[in-house]
Amino acid sequence: MSPERRSSFLAEHVDRLARTHLRDLLKDTARGKRLRHRAGPILLDLSRQKLDEAALEALGAHVEASGWQAARDAMFAGASINTSEQRAVLHTALRASGSQLASPAPREALEQIEQALQRIGALVQAVGQGDASPFGVAPGITDIVNIGIGGSDLGPRLAVRALAPFHVPGLRSHFLTNVDGQSAYELMHTLDPRRTLVIVVSKTFTTQETLLNGGVLRDWISRAYDGDAEAVARHFLAVSANVAAAESWGVPAAQVYPMWDFVGGRFSLWSAVGLSLALAIGMYNFRALLAGAAKVDDHFRSAPWQENLPVLLSLVELWNRNAQGRSSRAVVPYADLLTDLTSYLQQLEMESLGKQVTPQGQPITQSTSPVVWGSVGTNAQHAYFQALHQGTDVVPLEFIGVVRPAHDLQANHDALLSNLLAQAAALALGKTFDEALAEAKDGDESARRVLAAQRTFPGDRPSTVIMLDALTPESLGALIALYEHKVFMLGHLWGINAFDQWGVELGKSIARQILPALDGSLDDTASFDSATRALIEAIHERRTKQHERS
Amino acid sequence: MSPERRSSFLAEHVDRLARTHLRDLLKDTARGKRLRHRAGPILLDLSRQKLDEAALEALGAHVEASGWQAARDAMFAGASINTSEQRAVLHTALRASGSQLASPAPREALEQIEQALQRIGALVQAVGQGDASPFGVAPGITDIVNIGIGGSDLGPRLAVRALAPFHVPGLRSHFLTNVDGQSAYELMHTLDPRRTLVIVVSKTFTTQETLLNGGVLRDWISRAYDGDAEAVARHFLAVSANVAAAESWGVPAAQVYPMWDFVGGRFSLWSAVGLSLALAIGMYNFRALLAGAAKVDDHFRSAPWQENLPVLLSLVELWNRNAQGRSSRAVVPYADLLTDLTSYLQQLEMESLGKQVTPQGQPITQSTSPVVWGSVGTNAQHAYFQALHQGTDVVPLEFIGVVRPAHDLQANHDALLSNLLAQAAALALGKTFDEALAEAKDGDESARRVLAAQRTFPGDRPSTVIMLDALTPESLGALIALYEHKVFMLGHLWGINAFDQWGVELGKSIARQILPALDGSLDDTASFDSATRALIEAIHERRTKQHERS
Repeated sequence: MSPERRSSFLAEHVDRLARTHLRDLLKDTARGKRLRHRAGPILLDLSRQKLDEAALEALGAHVEASGWQAARDAMFAGASINTSEQRAVLHTALRASGSQLASPAPREALEQIEQALQRIGALVQAVGQGDASPFGVAPGITDIVNIGIGGSDLGPRLAVRALAPFHVPGLRSHFLTNVDGQSAYELMHTLDPRRTLVIVVSKTFTTQETLLNGGVLRDWISRAYDGDAEAVARHFLAVSANVAAAESWGVPAAQVYPMWDFVGGRFSLWSAVGLSLALAIGMYNFRALLAGAAKVDDHFRSAPWQENLPVLLSLVELWNRNAQGRSSRAVVPYADLLTDLTSYLQQLEMESLGKQVTPQGQPITQSTSPVVWGSVGTNAQHAYFQALHQGTDVVPLEFIGVVRPAHDLQANHDALLSNLLAQAAALALGKTFDEALAEAKDGDESARRVLAAQRTFPGDRPSTVIMLDALTPESLGALIALYEHKVFMLGHLWGINAFDQWGVELGKSIARQILPALDGSLDDTASFDSATRALIEAIHERRTKQHERS
Repeated sequence: MSPERRSSFLAEHVDRLARTHLRDLLKDTARGKRLRHRAGPILLDLSRQKLDEAALEALGAHVEASGWQAARDAMFAGASINTSEQRAVLHTALRASGSQLASPAPREALEQIEQALQRIGALVQAVGQGDASPFGVAPGITDIVNIGIGGSDLGPRLAVRALAPFHVPGLRSHFLTNVDGQSAYELMHTLDPRRTLVIVVSKTFTTQETLLNGGVLRDWISRAYDGDAEAVARHFLAVSANVAAAESWGVPAAQVYPMWDFVGGRFSLWSAVGLSLALAIGMYNFRALLAGAAKVDDHFRSAPWQENLPVLLSLVELWNRNAQGRSSRAVVPYADLLTDLTSYLQQLEMESLGKQVTPQGQPITQSTSPVVWGSVGTNAQHAYFQALHQGTDVVPLEFIGVVRPAHDLQANHDALLSNLLAQAAALALGKTFDEALAEAKDGDESARRVLAAQRTFPGDRPSTVIMLDALTPESLGALIALYEHKVFMLGHLWGINAFDQWGVELGKSIARQILPALDGSLDDTASFDSATRALIEAIHERRTKQHERS
């Protein structure tokens, strides 16, 4: 990171702390009081971040001077904070029913939301009881396929997998995402078209990938009914803001569930976008997910910054990103059920915060979203942790653990948690050359020193630990809401509109130009740059090779 | 990245190229000749890297002066280049049977390897024919569970998924990896213990995760046979260098397939570690995988640096990492079948190259392994591509595409490839403020300028495109070997021993100390640092809460 992108008001704290190893900071046992906080089922431990009291106070003064409470209240109240699209940002209203605090959201939005929840609840109950014909759905459904991409996929996918122990019996969930035909092909060879319910999720109902895959499954189901369009329609629901487009595509209007302009795709799990989840876990659990999120909303709205989990998370990110110059953050859940958390957070954070101009069009002088990456532990320990311990770059980590598992293999679970705790400790403490030398028994002094150098760990590498009491609909809702509000706070602190995504447009528009050159409807590639042209030609040449052979 | 970690001999080229946008570099149509090369089924396109002829020549002079050919030949010949463990590095010998060039590997190793392949081939054939009792395996096997972690998991997992179109009928493959009991729990509720064959893969046969999971499945199968140990043993194979430990654990010696000290875990797919793959795709295809890798071995051994794909990939990484200061690289396969490629490469690259001392114990002055991350496209476009296009950091990308799909959904495939090409183009070309302003139709001048600023794309962001003619055992073998040799080259250029992994040891040893404090056999936590102690206490407290409730 170039120096000018660093935060100058934190420089003195960085310089002071550069002289103190985390190993020494951790000797202050009072440290935990300031840096370890709980909200409901979530324990957030920031005590292994490379902060001391003075640095934390400087960050706190910064956030307090930023007017964050007013910005937060404007979001909850439905102000048009997504300025480039002139939209309100009301994902918190989707779960206001679970809140202890009165919602300041517009009454009309709250009413639409509650009506939609009632519709979803009635459908879920009917499917659960085996006869959803009043909702237009064929009988005997055993498999649900959610077709969507980005925000129409990542949230439901995360939650359906995370809450596997809460699944209702007799219904299997599938996610068809990529336009790569392979996944559709495999699904069609696995499922029974007469027992499959497809949910097509697209706010605009124009998403290329989703409509192509929807069309493939529609043809497949149509073949099973000899082209009887009415029978086919009973295997489709849509979730969209564009009822007309869904209807003309083949989903009757009564089978379209709503999306609204005031909810962005990556914040939409709590809406009808979560329909596949509600079907998988039932409405009681879906409401519990909302309630868990609402508890964190209340916490975010009421706690002072010193105890406010999303605020603290955002300050630590600001510290690592802008003061310490870290370019990525690894998210490592020690829970197979949270396999999809990292990809969910990649979208939530990088699509929201991967920007370089303010809503007023001015360049942002600090670095914004780091790369968010990672995967499940302990697997990750056997993959890339070598580089996290002994590589040349410092990568802050976020460990997520679950105290009580959903199974009774306690020895496995103890081993799992001991590894989580050990990695956070090892990264912070390290092992000095002298310690490594004392352990090196074989060979002469020179050989011992060479080996000790390779077995030295610098340590002083920061991490956050998040512990959930158990992985339940409530705690999952709380965890996701925690990250949502952290993202909101970083958008506020960096001066970013976290709720648009203009950066996805250019690639889409170029893809529309290239497609005709690949499918054979355009011969002239002269308008493309030299590299694109060469690749188009290479693709045509290698396709032909096969045709000659076969 | 701090300046002192940059490569000084490339500085003049960086400075010169800083004044030229990739958009302009791409106007040189001769550029492709130097930067686009083919080896067998792989087309490597580096023309969108921010290099010109002079920079490429400087990199070439650097590698030529490095003695890379001698280092390469020493690896192929079996010299002890893994100096910290005094071991040869002979994964290339595992596929020497498919090579056109004579192998310089020790004859004894080649003989052991061929014997092992014969054993694997005979077993695979017998399982395929439904009676593997001469190999100790129970009849009627329908499901294979590979238990392993790190190198004993990632390679077979990648290849089994990638080669799904080549699977033999009637056998399903599963991978049990994490010590989290959830996956074992789910497998036991899905599979029939009498029809399941478990392959326990661990070089030392001491891997905590693998043995715990092995024990869980052994108990499960044992219950199905009322504790008949002989019957249980017919459901287990092992792959290990420690036959005695496997035998005393319960796998008869005749059912243990070999691992050797001269093959590292993350390079071991080509050995018996690939047993689950060989069973899934049959021996003909497994041999084809080896042959595909061997062709790249031959290419690596014979092509001049200007046309040598692994050498070029390593030079581009050196350029991006050490000259341009990029801290991560995103790997984005446009192929659902290559879902696991990124996690495979994370281990291959970060575990090999995430180090900061030389084999002589001296500090390395340059930055070493970047963070390797990514996921499948087009999904990734709807997740984090916003940040890649408009974020403050430049992240080099690696796109991987497949010309001919394994299905007949051609419209999907054309859409997929058009998106791959479009993203590489968009990242390089960008969109200027003036172009964005011309597109902004609504509002007054000020509003148009604000919107145009947000719809501007800086471009000038580098990417590599790798196109496979088709995804086959041959091309997958070639692709993996390409990356293996790239890693070898970077190890050579950075002065790293790419074949050890001391950085995984400290966490393991601390986990062994913490485990007793979690499972209740140790009450005294005074020896731990304050943060570890607090988390152990928090875990105990929250466990108890549940017990009080239930």
